[in-house]
Amino acid sequence: MTAADAKLAADLSRVRGSVDMTHGAGGRAMAELIRDVFHKHLANDYLAQGNDGALLGSVSGRLVMAADSHVISPLFFPGGDIGALSVHGTVNDVAMMGARPLWLSASFIMEEGFPLAELEKIVVSMALAARQAGVPVVTGDTKVVEKGKGDGVFISTTGVGVLSEATDISGSNARPGDAIIVSGTMGDHGIAILSKREHLDFETEILSDTQPLNDLVAAMLAAVPGIRVLRDPTRGGLSATLNEIAHQSKVGMVIGETAVPVKPEVAAACELLGLDPLNVANEGKLIAICGSDDAATLLAAMRSHPKGLDAAIIGEVVADEHALVTMRTRLGGMRVVDWIAGEQLPRIC
Amino acid sequence: MTAADAKLAADLSRVRGSVDMTHGAGGRAMAELIRDVFHKHLANDYLAQGNDGALLGSVSGRLVMAADSHVISPLFFPGGDIGALSVHGTVNDVAMMGARPLWLSASFIMEEGFPLAELEKIVVSMALAARQAGVPVVTGDTKVVEKGKGDGVFISTTGVGVLSEATDISGSNARPGDAIIVSGTMGDHGIAILSKREHLDFETEILSDTQPLNDLVAAMLAAVPGIRVLRDPTRGGLSATLNEIAHQSKVGMVIGETAVPVKPEVAAACELLGLDPLNVANEGKLIAICGSDDAATLLAAMRSHPKGLDAAIIGEVVADEHALVTMRTRLGGMRVVDWIAGEQLPRIC
Repeated sequence: MTAADAKLAADLSRVRGSVDMTHGAGGRAMAELIRDVFHKHLANDYLAQGNDGALLGSVSGRLVMAADSHVISPLFFPGGDIGALSVHGTVNDVAMMGARPLWLSASFIMEEGFPLAELEKIVVSMALAARQAGVPVVTGDTKVVEKGKGDGVFISTTGVGVLSEATDISGSNARPGDAIIVSGTMGDHGIAILSKREHLDFETEILSDTQPLNDLVAAMLAAVPGIRVLRDPTRGGLSATLNEIAHQSKVGMVIGETAVPVKPEVAAACELLGLDPLNVANEGKLIAICGSDDAATLLAAMRSHPKGLDAAIIGEVVADEHALVTMRTRLGGMRVVDWIAGEQLPRIC
Repeated sequence: MTAADAKLAADLSRVRGSVDMTHGAGGRAMAELIRDVFHKHLANDYLAQGNDGALLGSVSGRLVMAADSHVISPLFFPGGDIGALSVHGTVNDVAMMGARPLWLSASFIMEEGFPLAELEKIVVSMALAARQAGVPVVTGDTKVVEKGKGDGVFISTTGVGVLSEATDISGSNARPGDAIIVSGTMGDHGIAILSKREHLDFETEILSDTQPLNDLVAAMLAAVPGIRVLRDPTRGGLSATLNEIAHQSKVGMVIGETAVPVKPEVAAACELLGLDPLNVANEGKLIAICGSDDAATLLAAMRSHPKGLDAAIIGEVVADEHALVTMRTRLGGMRVVDWIAGEQLPRIC
């Protein structure tokens, strides 16, 4: 945390009261809320324009756009909160296109009665996250719904970024023989949320891994411009994401159970809860697929970045018209890694 | 409605069932919902890319970004629904910068138990609105919250557009002597919602004016490139919007009550309900401010466009360091046009 960040965090005014319907009514109360909470902390030249939208300037290169709504419960969790998450989620979706995220929009749907002090904490956290990622929130919106018609606060963000001509990253680019790499341990976010929600006490507190990955992606592309696929294994975890890519690319995948990094405490929590860490959401990890010739270079680049220290090659892409993802288990058998069929962890992001 | 639009509207499949938590879980159920409801109707080359974001291509010119969340209740109302409104709201915010809207993102927060058939109706309406506005929905997200933690469906949209170098439109550009023009009748949207919500029966059904204004804005800029301010009087109505502009530009305004176009049935409903039509929301009207020399040309251009037939000059900008908006009343007196202080019409957009 820089000195400026610390000042910002300390600058939480002692806001009292709670969100009421007038804060969504387009009148003076809404204008004051926007000025005293949103613009105060998110302050930048774009918001200062004060119009219905933001004038961003020109960019050269191809544009990329990604959107995410965030309905996570609880709003504050070990390692983060909905404010930071709503920045990271969308910054990462833009970064997974191989693009450099430039701007974010943020729309808040607030429930009547939600404490303004908590709202301000969330906005401060969002502001910090945006500055740490280097991606300003340039425009937004606030709406209020009656008590019992929402749940505290929901935040929808959209990101716009720019993609260099050399980059061609898509879930449909995986080819047989390619290496599958993950940037770190799987399942931290989901288990952090679940333990908070269910009031589970583990010896070691498990923190969400929520973080922006645009800097890691930039380092990876600098090392291996020909990365074929990038995707962050959020809802549905590694299983869902690998299956998505396998379907898009019409290939199979074989991964090794022992090759997938999982923190011991997360593995223990999963065992206790009857969960498969491969199905558990992450918010600060990515999957990369590249040609086998590039794998060592890419892995080295990832491991030399603070957000990729635990990066590992977990398997390879194979030819398979049925697009099956299979796993060599710890005991040497093979099993299909399927998408979760039902609901495992609601409102995880 | 074109033949293709009619086909699309008729193509509503007989979807049964309702949204459940698996539709937000990142697994197979979510993938199927996205394919069978969202991609089916919103279909375009961007969505077909199938990645976490959309690759948009390059644009020359300055970019503009605007965001809106939509929490309107009821979801279906005379003259529109939340699907169309969520396109119009953001297309119009981009257009009010003087920009040409190019792309939209759309994020859905759905309540468990919401009928899938109604969701599909909303998506079909959104698709129609997007095609009519010429602005595709290129990326999005779906989340599900438990029954009682939301209210049917909320939709957040963000729009990106491009602005020509010649255009300089901002709420801070109004100058004393400028003319204030509205594009049509005030209050239609708010009264349509309220009459539906309160089960009021008027002799003539009052329809929401929800519509995209990007074509009207293009015609206006072609006639008068030097338009100084554009803004759509949504929440808080004409009063709030004029006050916003007055504050931004540090000017006063004087408008004439008899000059503001209001449909007789809307005026009657307002009288019955004790509402001031100047405070009631619009979703398909705009305010334009231009130099007095340009006013006649701009008015003529607006009146020759189908969405500006009832356009009228309603007043002028004056020097006033207190940024007061005042109105010459029907009876010849003067009164201050203030922002609404409290909540008049919750969840109007």
